[in-house]
Amino acid sequence: MLEQVTQGAMQDAVDRELREPDFAEAGERSYALAAGLFPICRSITGDGVRASLALMRRHIALTTPEVPTGTQLFDWTAPKEWNIRRAHIKGPDGKTVVDFADSNLHVQSYSVPVAGTMPLSELRKHLHTLPDQPDLIPYRTSYWKETWGFCLTHRQASALSEGDYEVLIDSTLADGALTYGEYLHEGTSEDEFLLTAHICHPSLANDNCSGLALLTILAEHLKGLRTRLSYRFVFSPGTVGPIAWLAQNEAHVGRIKHGLVVAGVGDGGGPTYKKSRKGNSFIDRAMAHVLKHGLEAPAVIDFEPYGYDERQFCSPGFDLPVGLLQRSRFGTFPQYHTSADNLDFIAPRHLAGSLQAIWRAIEIAETNFTPLNLSPKGEPQLGRRGLYSASGGDKDGAMRAMAYLWVLNQADGTRTLLGIAERAGMPYHVLLAAARALTRVGLLADAATSARGR
Amino acid sequence: MLEQVTQGAMQDAVDRELREPDFAEAGERSYALAAGLFPICRSITGDGVRASLALMRRHIALTTPEVPTGTQLFDWTAPKEWNIRRAHIKGPDGKTVVDFADSNLHVQSYSVPVAGTMPLSELRKHLHTLPDQPDLIPYRTSYWKETWGFCLTHRQASALSEGDYEVLIDSTLADGALTYGEYLHEGTSEDEFLLTAHICHPSLANDNCSGLALLTILAEHLKGLRTRLSYRFVFSPGTVGPIAWLAQNEAHVGRIKHGLVVAGVGDGGGPTYKKSRKGNSFIDRAMAHVLKHGLEAPAVIDFEPYGYDERQFCSPGFDLPVGLLQRSRFGTFPQYHTSADNLDFIAPRHLAGSLQAIWRAIEIAETNFTPLNLSPKGEPQLGRRGLYSASGGDKDGAMRAMAYLWVLNQADGTRTLLGIAERAGMPYHVLLAAARALTRVGLLADAATSARGR
Amino acid sequence: MLEQVTQGAMQDAVDRELREPDFAEAGERSYALAAGLFPICRSITGDGVRASLALMRRHIALTTPEVPTGTQLFDWTAPKEWNIRRAHIKGPDGKTVVDFADSNLHVQSYSVPVAGTMPLSELRKHLHTLPDQPDLIPYRTSYWKETWGFCLTHRQASALSEGDYEVLIDSTLADGALTYGEYLHEGTSEDEFLLTAHICHPSLANDNCSGLALLTILAEHLKGLRTRLSYRFVFSPGTVGPIAWLAQNEAHVGRIKHGLVVAGVGDGGGPTYKKSRKGNSFIDRAMAHVLKHGLEAPAVIDFEPYGYDERQFCSPGFDLPVGLLQRSRFGTFPQYHTSADNLDFIAPRHLAGSLQAIWRAIEIAETNFTPLNLSPKGEPQLGRRGLYSASGGDKDGAMRAMAYLWVLNQADGTRTLLGIAERAGMPYHVLLAAARALTRVGLLADAATSARGR
Repeated sequence: MLEQVTQGAMQDAVDRELREPDFAEAGERSYALAAGLFPICRSITGDGVRASLALMRRHIALTTPEVPTGTQLFDWTAPKEWNIRRAHIKGPDGKTVVDFADSNLHVQSYSVPVAGTMPLSELRKHLHTLPDQPDLIPYRTSYWKETWGFCLTHRQASALSEGDYEVLIDSTLADGALTYGEYLHEGTSEDEFLLTAHICHPSLANDNCSGLALLTILAEHLKGLRTRLSYRFVFSPGTVGPIAWLAQNEAHVGRIKHGLVVAGVGDGGGPTYKKSRKGNSFIDRAMAHVLKHGLEAPAVIDFEPYGYDERQFCSPGFDLPVGLLQRSRFGTFPQYHTSADNLDFIAPRHLAGSLQAIWRAIEIAETNFTPLNLSPKGEPQLGRRGLYSASGGDKDGAMRAMAYLWVLNQADGTRTLLGIAERAGMPYHVLLAAARALTRVGLLADAATSARGR
Repeated sequence: MLEQVTQGAMQDAVDRELREPDFAEAGERSYALAAGLFPICRSITGDGVRASLALMRRHIALTTPEVPTGTQLFDWTAPKEWNIRRAHIKGPDGKTVVDFADSNLHVQSYSVPVAGTMPLSELRKHLHTLPDQPDLIPYRTSYWKETWGFCLTHRQASALSEGDYEVLIDSTLADGALTYGEYLHEGTSEDEFLLTAHICHPSLANDNCSGLALLTILAEHLKGLRTRLSYRFVFSPGTVGPIAWLAQNEAHVGRIKHGLVVAGVGDGGGPTYKKSRKGNSFIDRAMAHVLKHGLEAPAVIDFEPYGYDERQFCSPGFDLPVGLLQRSRFGTFPQYHTSADNLDFIAPRHLAGSLQAIWRAIEIAETNFTPLNLSPKGEPQLGRRGLYSASGGDKDGAMRAMAYLWVLNQADGTRTLLGIAERAGMPYHVLLAAARALTRVGLLADAATSARGR
Repeated sequence: MLEQVTQGAMQDAVDRELREPDFAEAGERSYALAAGLFPICRSITGDGVRASLALMRRHIALTTPEVPTGTQLFDWTAPKEWNIRRAHIKGPDGKTVVDFADSNLHVQSYSVPVAGTMPLSELRKHLHTLPDQPDLIPYRTSYWKETWGFCLTHRQASALSEGDYEVLIDSTLADGALTYGEYLHEGTSEDEFLLTAHICHPSLANDNCSGLALLTILAEHLKGLRTRLSYRFVFSPGTVGPIAWLAQNEAHVGRIKHGLVVAGVGDGGGPTYKKSRKGNSFIDRAMAHVLKHGLEAPAVIDFEPYGYDERQFCSPGFDLPVGLLQRSRFGTFPQYHTSADNLDFIAPRHLAGSLQAIWRAIEIAETNFTPLNLSPKGEPQLGRRGLYSASGGDKDGAMRAMAYLWVLNQADGTRTLLGIAERAGMPYHVLLAAARALTRVGLLADAATSARGR
């Protein structure tokens, strides 16, 4: 059957062409893009999202669907569109004490417009601070209750003197659209690997300029490559964004075979992988394997329904195999949701490490197969095929030899290469290299191809 | 189908009516009843058992079946009935050195009658002491070998001088009956929850006046309540008692869906739950959950065939889901089977805690159901339904929010609420409250009811 | 059905006749045989193997098949036969500096013949030493590449002065045969227990004179016994030996129900049991049980495809339930594959302990059965059958009582006695004694026999 044979041949082609990114360089480029995204005032809707997507579109041909306000999205409706031009508080002496131009964290996201004068006692009801972190500005939102507010350092708020304050928030909250970005790298198969990051936070570098930038640079790298899987990138506002995407793509979600929510991937913690609701899907196993054999101090944690957008993909009506990759766990570090989550908090090398973890999982998803030992009775004689390292004390050679033995021993057609790597406790890429060498000398075949040959 | 809809409606009614005991008060009342039971000289048969049941009948309408001596009970026969009026040892000087009137532990239970005079050397063959605990009287029985004996402190036995002793045990061991008590609280279902305690030990407060009293007070509390399950209480002598009950009720044991042997529940240790032979039955999971989320230092231990009457319920011919609740593990504390297991060894607050553990398991058995998320695609919008706590830093609110998320996420019709509580690591009652709130706003249904509705 | 009843009766007979070895004496005899085997220069082929088998044949009626050089053996061919008569190196002063007569480790096994004179610089390319263990001679082979070499202490090699050396290896590498030894103790069943040791190493006492000797003495002991299983002993050169045996016996390997590779069983470490590829076969469970309840500090390790001849039996084309018993794990002790693995490194008492471990597994394999409680409703009354120890404080009696309870409780026809021992955490032999006592009083039967009786 020509088509199937072609598929086998294509597999080899794919492997050859799956050039990995230059991680250090990709980390630098991700950081630069994150730095570009940082100043933009994003919210769950509005021109900030559009401006961000425009910046990302310089790298990849994003489409930017717009979902009109009021559109029914399962249990939700698309929210009003929020835009803000300027905002400030002026003190009794007429001097500006808080200016949105200094930091877009100063205005509670989704604040309704306000303009007027009020005594400090009244104003204080609309001020948000962090008493325990008196020099940081908190990040606050009010998506589901129409109100307004300012965020400032506790030190600054404590120093305000009595008197009347002039308050201005020049914003609009009106019918418009929810905007998101989408990009598809087509592979030879319709099976998809979903990669998604939330785009609704304003000037927070790690949460989630890091994720937006990293995935954009990854998508850009894929452009030149021929892959087996298709890679779908979605950049949408938290919670309501993936709900909108799911509502609009409900008929096709079955194509998603693996998925990662990517958020907070620029700091020096972790990495942390949170499993999908299924708990033992391929992406869960692949990410656990990648992190186990990585260089850093990883954590793999069980699914829980609190978190980022995996909450929506893992809702019981979809139950997709989508996990979450972050570095430090959100909410556990002092910079979280404050002005300290700035460009000093993230670094190119951490972005590079995060990309490498994702890439290793992609490699496994692209190359994993079920090997079949073609000489299964006793060990085949590796020596006469040049597969035994000649000299002793060759540590790499010993590892290669162990890899040959594991692959041959386990290649009975019941386990994929990832499953063998898990049992052997050896890195997937070492077993993949062994499997390729064994295939070249005729000792191993793809069980699927082999079955088709019969 | 009317009946089934009614059943659903009834469930709600049941929940509302499942008023929990005032545990502190119930602890006091259990202690008082235990104190009343303490002086009675019980054995596996005889008037002591009848007197004890009479005392308990002041609280609940116990039936007291009598199984005639010699009745075949599987591999056993109902034993002879033992009764004792008085017993003593008088010394060479004619003074009473041991008197049954002082403590019914002084006579080995089931001793045959004896009256005569014998030298100390002969008498010693019939004396039981505890050399390592020289001030305590041991508890000894001889059910299956006709003999007689006295139990006394080692100090007292050591002080006996040479000479002839007058020995009297005015007992009878003759055909009669094995007596046990039984009480059924009828629920709306014929499914039963068995609660049982052994009634054969004389003046041992923890082992098992505590269990007899606690279950009696629990049964009394249930009288006013409408329950789904029926609750069967059995008070019978150890080993041969449950065997007699099983033999007489063999046709109906399938009704027992959950069961607890309750013994030694008045001391300050534990609580300790020993799993049923099945090891993962509902009662095992419910008790493990209750103890895990309780306030004390619990232990859940695996089944083993040595223990209390669960040995009979868990024999392979029945293999019923019956576990054992005790506080300290029997045999591991110095008071065990000695005169130190007296009314000072147990306390109302420990009885109250034990009752609470049982009650929590009853609550789970009464209310557990398989929830179905009616808005399973993405998270439903909790905010607009008033289910999200408005203010931050609200720890209870955060726990409630997590409970909503867990219930919604896991309510796919494959798990009961207890299963969700186990996966979430959260207390059942918190998830139950969340499930009820979600049901009220129309986001959740009972999967069984829902299936019937289709 | 007569035959089946006979089988049941035979079981009893077998049990009675399964006399265990006098382990201490068997350890001494194994040591003596190992000492006899030690000086012989074995390799994977040749007269050294034949001489070794001849020594072992004094104990058991070994057959010694010969597989001609060039015979196809799956992916391998039978190698040439190697024999060596003498070898030496003489120094510039004509004095012998290395002499094969001193130690057969001095010549790299399978060295091609060489005779000539060469400068030290040239000679050094053929010298093997252990710089980190300067007083030990290494063991080296070159089976799959035609070369020659000498092994000597590093101290000796370092002291060689410049000049021309006379080198002689009077060996032949020519067509001949691969020889192995085989012995079958026939039981009443065709089901086989395979016991095998490699015979290819020269003067290494632990690796594997110990295994050869121990299995020979075990086989000799079995001669007088009537067993249920048949016991097949195979003594063949490492790797290619079991491959040859498997190739020649391919049609019958299904008879192998249990197997042990026995290697390095004379030192004081371990014992270590490495599981078969299956990981939970009967031999894996039996050996884990035996080691757990043994007196020494055992280790049970997972299968990996590196090791001894279990590599071949556990290749995916056979996947036989064959594990590995050794004491210290090979490669982890400094004596491994050096001249320090001599007769001082092994001891009769260690051989005795290893034999005992194997024997305990044999006992389990011979006697394990699925017991059925014939009085499963409630506990049967052990007291009237004299199965309860009368006196308290009798520790053995308490253990026996627990054994009765465990066997009776678990004997529902779903578990073998080994499974019960695993659940109870008690030694198999204690439960076996209990099961036999219960069978004698009519409380227990063999579930298989009982089913046949119905």
